[in-house]
Amino acid sequence: MEDFKKLAEQYKSELLDSVLPFWLEKSQDKEFGGYFTCLDRKGEVFDTDKFIWLQGREVWMFSKLYNKVERRKEWLDAAIQGGEFLKKYGHDGNYNWYFSLTREGKPLVDPYNIFSYTFATMAFGQLSIATGNEEYAEIAKKTFDIILSKVDNPKGKWNKAHAGTRSLKNFALPMILCNLALEIEPLLDPEFMQKSIDVCIHEVMDVFRRPELGGLIVENVAEDGSLVDCMDGRHMIPGHAIEAMWFIMDLGKRLNRPELIEEAKNTALKTAEYGWDKEYGGIFYFMDLHGHPTQELEWDQKLWWVHIETLISMIKGYQLTGDERCLEWFKRVHDYVWTHFKDPKYPEWFGYLNRRGEVLLELKGGKWKGCFHVPRGLYQVWQILETLK
Amino acid sequence: MEDFKKLAEQYKSELLDSVLPFWLEKSQDKEFGGYFTCLDRKGEVFDTDKFIWLQGREVWMFSKLYNKVERRKEWLDAAIQGGEFLKKYGHDGNYNWYFSLTREGKPLVDPYNIFSYTFATMAFGQLSIATGNEEYAEIAKKTFDIILSKVDNPKGKWNKAHAGTRSLKNFALPMILCNLALEIEPLLDPEFMQKSIDVCIHEVMDVFRRPELGGLIVENVAEDGSLVDCMDGRHMIPGHAIEAMWFIMDLGKRLNRPELIEEAKNTALKTAEYGWDKEYGGIFYFMDLHGHPTQELEWDQKLWWVHIETLISMIKGYQLTGDERCLEWFKRVHDYVWTHFKDPKYPEWFGYLNRRGEVLLELKGGKWKGCFHVPRGLYQVWQILETLK
Repeated sequence: MEDFKKLAEQYKSELLDSVLPFWLEKSQDKEFGGYFTCLDRKGEVFDTDKFIWLQGREVWMFSKLYNKVERRKEWLDAAIQGGEFLKKYGHDGNYNWYFSLTREGKPLVDPYNIFSYTFATMAFGQLSIATGNEEYAEIAKKTFDIILSKVDNPKGKWNKAHAGTRSLKNFALPMILCNLALEIEPLLDPEFMQKSIDVCIHEVMDVFRRPELGGLIVENVAEDGSLVDCMDGRHMIPGHAIEAMWFIMDLGKRLNRPELIEEAKNTALKTAEYGWDKEYGGIFYFMDLHGHPTQELEWDQKLWWVHIETLISMIKGYQLTGDERCLEWFKRVHDYVWTHFKDPKYPEWFGYLNRRGEVLLELKGGKWKGCFHVPRGLYQVWQILETLK
Repeated sequence: MEDFKKLAEQYKSELLDSVLPFWLEKSQDKEFGGYFTCLDRKGEVFDTDKFIWLQGREVWMFSKLYNKVERRKEWLDAAIQGGEFLKKYGHDGNYNWYFSLTREGKPLVDPYNIFSYTFATMAFGQLSIATGNEEYAEIAKKTFDIILSKVDNPKGKWNKAHAGTRSLKNFALPMILCNLALEIEPLLDPEFMQKSIDVCIHEVMDVFRRPELGGLIVENVAEDGSLVDCMDGRHMIPGHAIEAMWFIMDLGKRLNRPELIEEAKNTALKTAEYGWDKEYGGIFYFMDLHGHPTQELEWDQKLWWVHIETLISMIKGYQLTGDERCLEWFKRVHDYVWTHFKDPKYPEWFGYLNRRGEVLLELKGGKWKGCFHVPRGLYQVWQILETLK
């Protein structure tokens, strides 16, 4: 493990020689444009519906690699064709982004989900940088404006919570905005951006992160910021919290705020400790703050993204603070990930394991798993490992 | 097993001496009325929110037992206090039934869910018979009328499906209506009732039950009744299908249609065979018609209601047709249920097991498990076993 160079090579080669070729070859719909994401163990398409989260994320991924790693034409072509499909079919004409489409691009599920908007913004932000195409930048900016207008009620008319009884606010949107802010910073007015970033950092670190819980993060709090003793109020997603902490570290680096990096690193460590399954290894998907039964039946499963985001947070925490505990956690999760999620036989990684770490679903992509967490994680870890000595 | 009398005694005593006392003692909210349903392994309340499905089902259960088994005052009192809570707080004043309430009865989640209406109808129908109170009968009738007015779009404004692209209709509502029809038959106009029943039987047996699948049932079909090759269109819930078949057998008995009973019994057998986990035993929760990965991460779990409903369908199938395969299936599932779901230490049964049959959540009640499937199943099986020789 001390041989960071060798390890960097492992992540780099997995990304460039295995995972990216898989998505380039298997996911592109050469007939209708966009991407298939429902891919079985071998990469065969088992369903042709197209989900805006995953369309946007794949556009983003190929654009990002084109912008940051190498100017490969096949990456740019893949990004542009997906971007064009999204531009044409992904929204209602006013940048309200559907949740899913048929293969041909007809809307299937209406724009109820704010994260369809955030991933569209990321996609077109990064694609505009890759192409210099001002139209893409405009789509990103317009969509970002709509997101900001929806911050107080992201679910809009689909919100089932009865007004006035128990209004909760949710962690996911401010968390994602911490990442999105840096992604589209070049496109926006600096003063406005600075203000938005301050608000998001405050929400994540001072509202959802709880000093009374030793710095753990809850998914929902009351409007006034207090903890609520109900299922949603006790709901915890360790993977979410840990992922958010590398977004915060990136912001700490960008804003030159080492104390923010330190706090984020400590919360990532605390959450990994809290979420680790002492019996079978791996990090639980959902937990209840008081240890009560969770609402979610899949609470004890081990999900790819949770573990890959933990790798990023730990290696970034080590890079930025030198805390040896981060390195120990990176090693532990690295061992778990490569022996459990990596498919020894076919490219790309498994996404869903049961508590014991056995494969629960053999798919390589589906409704929620696409060309995103695995390649983004491999890219991030590879880049960071290359800086370590 | 041939000793049906002894077995009947086992079901009866589990119901009367263990399960019902558990709910009477642990679930009633003596302060605000209604029922707690979030109860841990020992029956301690771990959350006080009240879910209309489960409030309605508990009112129904105690009313039903009062009407059918014995005129116990404690059952009637429990039913009435729950009914009064529901009457006062469960709806918006126009019999639009919320999904959940706070402990005190304030609305938490708006009336998006049609099954809140169906269980309210069952509750007040049975409670009106128990009490002779005409007001309860009126609530049942009015709510039933609203259900019928919503049949074409049960989700109303919360429907996220984009109109015109891929309209699917779902099995659950016609299935429940098959049961509800008999439940509230005494309250309604006979001619109207007969017509409604005919429509529901047609939907269940001729639309969702598929001859090309050997009589298996799918959860969603196109408006024109055809199969759709998408995740929802391939979605199967064996427990649903098997449960529906005893509703159909009851209708077959009521309508004196032995051929309907025969068909329902065959579909129950076919589905049990299809859904049985050959490796670990038990019946899967969700399956994909083509064997593709399911959307649901909990697909391989073993749920209490699936197995209890199978017991009912199999013993009823045996009672009504004499098919020995039903008795074999009853034995197999009986053995699984009593060794896996029954808690050897505390009353009431576990609800959620992992694929291996190990307890996944220790709760005895929660957001979806209340005083319903276990006692209804014990009651049904007990009653049927007593008729067998």
